[in-house]
Amino acid sequence: MQPLLRVLNGETLDKPPVWFMRQAGRFLPEYRAIRAKASFEQLLSDSDLAAEVTLQPIRRFPQIDGAIIFSDILVILDALGCEVTIPEGGPRIGKTLDQIDINRPLDESIFDPVQAAIRKVKAQLPEKVTMLGFAGAPWTLLAYGIEGKGSKSWTKAKAFLHHDPVLARKWLDKLADAAARLLNLHIGAGAQGVQLFDTWAGELDAQDYAEFALPAVERTLSQVTAAPTLFFARTGYLPDALNQLSCKGLAVPWQVPMAEARRRFPKMVLQGNLDPIALLAGTETACRKARAIVDVMKGHPHIFNLGHGLTPETDPAVLQAVLNEVKA
Amino acid sequence: MQPLLRVLNGETLDKPPVWFMRQAGRFLPEYRAIRAKASFEQLLSDSDLAAEVTLQPIRRFPQIDGAIIFSDILVILDALGCEVTIPEGGPRIGKTLDQIDINRPLDESIFDPVQAAIRKVKAQLPEKVTMLGFAGAPWTLLAYGIEGKGSKSWTKAKAFLHHDPVLARKWLDKLADAAARLLNLHIGAGAQGVQLFDTWAGELDAQDYAEFALPAVERTLSQVTAAPTLFFARTGYLPDALNQLSCKGLAVPWQVPMAEARRRFPKMVLQGNLDPIALLAGTETACRKARAIVDVMKGHPHIFNLGHGLTPETDPAVLQAVLNEVKA
Repeated sequence: MQPLLRVLNGETLDKPPVWFMRQAGRFLPEYRAIRAKASFEQLLSDSDLAAEVTLQPIRRFPQIDGAIIFSDILVILDALGCEVTIPEGGPRIGKTLDQIDINRPLDESIFDPVQAAIRKVKAQLPEKVTMLGFAGAPWTLLAYGIEGKGSKSWTKAKAFLHHDPVLARKWLDKLADAAARLLNLHIGAGAQGVQLFDTWAGELDAQDYAEFALPAVERTLSQVTAAPTLFFARTGYLPDALNQLSCKGLAVPWQVPMAEARRRFPKMVLQGNLDPIALLAGTETACRKARAIVDVMKGHPHIFNLGHGLTPETDPAVLQAVLNEVKA
Repeated sequence: MQPLLRVLNGETLDKPPVWFMRQAGRFLPEYRAIRAKASFEQLLSDSDLAAEVTLQPIRRFPQIDGAIIFSDILVILDALGCEVTIPEGGPRIGKTLDQIDINRPLDESIFDPVQAAIRKVKAQLPEKVTMLGFAGAPWTLLAYGIEGKGSKSWTKAKAFLHHDPVLARKWLDKLADAAARLLNLHIGAGAQGVQLFDTWAGELDAQDYAEFALPAVERTLSQVTAAPTLFFARTGYLPDALNQLSCKGLAVPWQVPMAEARRRFPKMVLQGNLDPIALLAGTETACRKARAIVDVMKGHPHIFNLGHGLTPETDPAVLQAVLNEVKA
């Protein structure tokens, strides 16, 4: 069995499998070459291009154990009619959720290209590399869907939870079901593991996160049973309640030391968690911090990764050095 | 003795004393009226204006127990020759620390206006209101001093710690001594308590924070003995090591539940920690969350405050309602 799948199934390996969040992205010159000719939206809708950029990091770094399909967490909002565009300055929602009928069915045709892309990647993937799918978590989708774009404080989205908690929960449930459906489509197309991204988990206080966001996360996870699931709550404050989620593992944000994650979430496969900014501090620092993470995770099911996505400024040579260090 | 001072000295009161981070600020129409005629820098250099804006929230909200002097954390960088300006878009450093001789003495004349302002406020302050001073913490000052402005990822500042750890520690020590000197000048001018702000604490991983930032924080705190000190590490990941700091109390960021802060930092006076964005979700939500904080802190020395600064969008009427709730 592939190393990454073995660990997702609870095994402990001597050398951890590795992949990197946002490994199909702007830090790679070959990705920028494609983006010079095609917009982000074109990559989302063209399964050949999406497959190509998914495979680029796998070709360049043969030590990588997971290929995460190129897509975007906001495709779910697009399938709900939000008319999402993703210009350079960050995503824009044409129709916010208050302009959308909550009973409107999901337009699943939006998900066709990503399924086709998964099939195409799968056909070309080296045998040892695990195919990964992903989706945005309900709260993060709600936050974008209410604000209409990225925000520093997510004021409207946070206020919405309290102004109309009944409607907020209905939307969270609907988004949870949509995320589950998308993950199951990814799995149906060939994904062998999936990750749910709660990018804006850290924007809610602990009580609101527990009351609103986590039940919706669980609603998604409990519907995804055909492949192992990872949950990434991007927050310095990781709640203990993550222990109760129906996921196989947690992607640990870089703020939380892996030793602490291991102590607090003993039954979870743990993934992470190098600070992507450490990759910009030079090879020596990046490798030293990577080594420390690998060492502290010895004896626990561990997938090496970053604690947030790769930045465009990353030098691929530094990433290669980190890969060598982790696999040494 | 004043309620806030009693709690800073370890007493537990039935009704917590209250102040709000950034209470002298843009959410008040009377502050905006002054800023319409004078720049932020003018307020910093004119002790009459600084005293006036410090007193504005005290006049409007008679229930407030603390007056924090109007100033800016970056005055220390200015006193080191960094030529700080604070336009609307955020602070700008004319000369970054790599352009400054580390042996250059602090130009303490930069601190004259804030001392004069403290004296003027003190002369007009109601008897029950405690005068508070503050300074920026060494890492936060270093981060601005290296980057030259605010940053999303603080890449240069974080890399600097690793590229030249010896020089980084020298600068952190120098900034720590400068912060201690400023806090002691505040106290000499009449401040009865002081808060050290580590605004960018959450940008360092736990190991770097422990190795670089915290020893410098302790270097500051250990030199400030004439008045009680509060330390504010703005991060969702509050390290246990804060228990070892020589401060009287901790300002708790809104991400961390007060019940957890109380359990983890049992010997600290605890201040906080309503999410300032909750004030934008309406009176009912803001008051309910404020009440929950007060209730959970019963029996522990507690100063009610926010878990981060007031936003300009805050409705003063909502703040008044929260004050009524906390004092009810």
